Amino acid sequence: MAVYTQVDDQTLAEFLSQYDVGEPTSFKGIAEGVENSNYLLETTKARFILTLYEKRANPADLPYFLALMEHIAKAGLPAPLPVHDKAGNALKTLKGRPACLISFLTGVSVNDTGPEQCAALGAALAGMHKATADFDQTRPNDLSLAGWHTLAGKIGDRADEIEPGLTALIREELAYLDAHWPAEGSLPAGTIHADLFPDNVLMLGGKVTGLIDFYFSCTDFLAYDIAVCLNSWCFDDAHAFVPVRAKRMMENYDILRPLTATETKALPILARGSALRFMLTRAYDWLNPVPGAVVRPKDPRDYLLRLKFHRTVSDAAQYVV
Amino acid sequence: MAVYTQVDDQTLAEFLSQYDVGEPTSFKGIAEGVENSNYLLETTKARFILTLYEKRANPADLPYFLALMEHIAKAGLPAPLPVHDKAGNALKTLKGRPACLISFLTGVSVNDTGPEQCAALGAALAGMHKATADFDQTRPNDLSLAGWHTLAGKIGDRADEIEPGLTALIREELAYLDAHWPAEGSLPAGTIHADLFPDNVLMLGGKVTGLIDFYFSCTDFLAYDIAVCLNSWCFDDAHAFVPVRAKRMMENYDILRPLTATETKALPILARGSALRFMLTRAYDWLNPVPGAVVRPKDPRDYLLRLKFHRTVSDAAQYVV
Repeated sequence: MAVYTQVDDQTLAEFLSQYDVGEPTSFKGIAEGVENSNYLLETTKARFILTLYEKRANPADLPYFLALMEHIAKAGLPAPLPVHDKAGNALKTLKGRPACLISFLTGVSVNDTGPEQCAALGAALAGMHKATADFDQTRPNDLSLAGWHTLAGKIGDRADEIEPGLTALIREELAYLDAHWPAEGSLPAGTIHADLFPDNVLMLGGKVTGLIDFYFSCTDFLAYDIAVCLNSWCFDDAHAFVPVRAKRMMENYDILRPLTATETKALPILARGSALRFMLTRAYDWLNPVPGAVVRPKDPRDYLLRLKFHRTVSDAAQYVV
Repeated sequence: MAVYTQVDDQTLAEFLSQYDVGEPTSFKGIAEGVENSNYLLETTKARFILTLYEKRANPADLPYFLALMEHIAKAGLPAPLPVHDKAGNALKTLKGRPACLISFLTGVSVNDTGPEQCAALGAALAGMHKATADFDQTRPNDLSLAGWHTLAGKIGDRADEIEPGLTALIREELAYLDAHWPAEGSLPAGTIHADLFPDNVLMLGGKVTGLIDFYFSCTDFLAYDIAVCLNSWCFDDAHAFVPVRAKRMMENYDILRPLTATETKALPILARGSALRFMLTRAYDWLNPVPGAVVRPKDPRDYLLRLKFHRTVSDAAQYVV
């Protein structure tokens, strides 16, 4: 949410001379993305986002993320297109950091995720799942069951500082998920975004104009992406579930990629896992704040409320009534 | 250097409905400016910067800054033009903070302030001084002599933590400036930018396309602005003075607004004062860092070196040989 690495005009000019993108006419650091440095660059030819990947990004994962974005953009979906330099490279080095120039997408992230927005989201998500059916690279989801155990271990009984009894609830939930999480091969799997929150979707006039921030993308159950969206799009500001949002999202998803009966049946447990995932990462950040940080960590209890809701759902049909 | 106040799409839409600026097509927080929240907004009509003024800005000063920007922009110089809403107001309230929409300016801040850039700067600065000759509002410079004493008092003998002997040097310098600072009325005064560092000037192809960040602007000796630029543009990366830069800057300034003999004679002391001013603010920030802040405070010693240089200058002619 800040610019960690400053890029001056001469360094930029030298970097851009390796591309065929025109001359810079504007260059501003933007407050976006997860712990990377991002610049909005305008040249005589077009607009771009320049990203410098900071410490938290694993350099080994970057070729996967860039190849995925390129695959999706080339399928005609509104994902950022990594720009290749004159030598054909998309992943470069700038100021000692891995760096990439991607195309700029217009659109505004919506805060009000009403039924219309959820409908557009559902279609975009199904489109992405279909477009990546022939994407041949894979990346394990390091924030699935094993990763949740690791995170819960790091948090330990400090979870009770967030809400008394939370430590026990996490243990109980993990035990349930261990026993019931769908086995590999039991559900259609493929490439998922894994973090398709409203701030990672750009819209204009009710249409999706951008799917961005693919830095949690990985290979996992496709329906897990739906579960993430159920949590991040289908609850209102008071954290109450809004069935009409879920209905519109899933209806529109289903038109492009019909969910199997097994997938539908698995939604409640996938939604529990997804709610736990975001509760755990938020809890960790909440308990380990960066001193003096400008942005307050997000409240993990928002996802505890979602988790508690999903625990009451025995049949996925309850999501759409 | 970050976005402190988040503005969601609905709040933005409601805010923009008070203007005649079109519909938003892109909206990104930018990492720019001094402790304010800034957004780059693109609408169906044009591009703008939306600024929300945070705690450190004195609301009482904002009408002055906005009126000044408007005055300069309307004189045809490349300053941001505050946009008035349908009711005619430029200064508004958004998310409980004073806020303003200003026009977007293309251009890139230059890090390499060579002679050509300094020449362009000199002309732009003189243009601004001429354009504000008929600007009838005033604001005292709270970072002149009295303000430096206040700052030095807050720093106290902790200055020695930066460099042994610095506390004594500051006291000595303040005593010298008390005795020799030009009296009010002894030099041409008017509206100055007071902080025209390279990052507050946008350029394209060697031309100045933007003078920005007027939030230190005030009424003071016009030649003090030249002294600020001598310090911020005319030293190289190793903090050595580069006379050809100063020569080109002042030559080009002089074409538009000839310096009086008294002003030229006062340059060394104005440069000492200006070097002290930036050394003191940097020293204060250096000794009182925001814990965990992303941006490291700037090194006050860069300006101590400049101050020491100006102490060796007895005649302004030395700046241009």
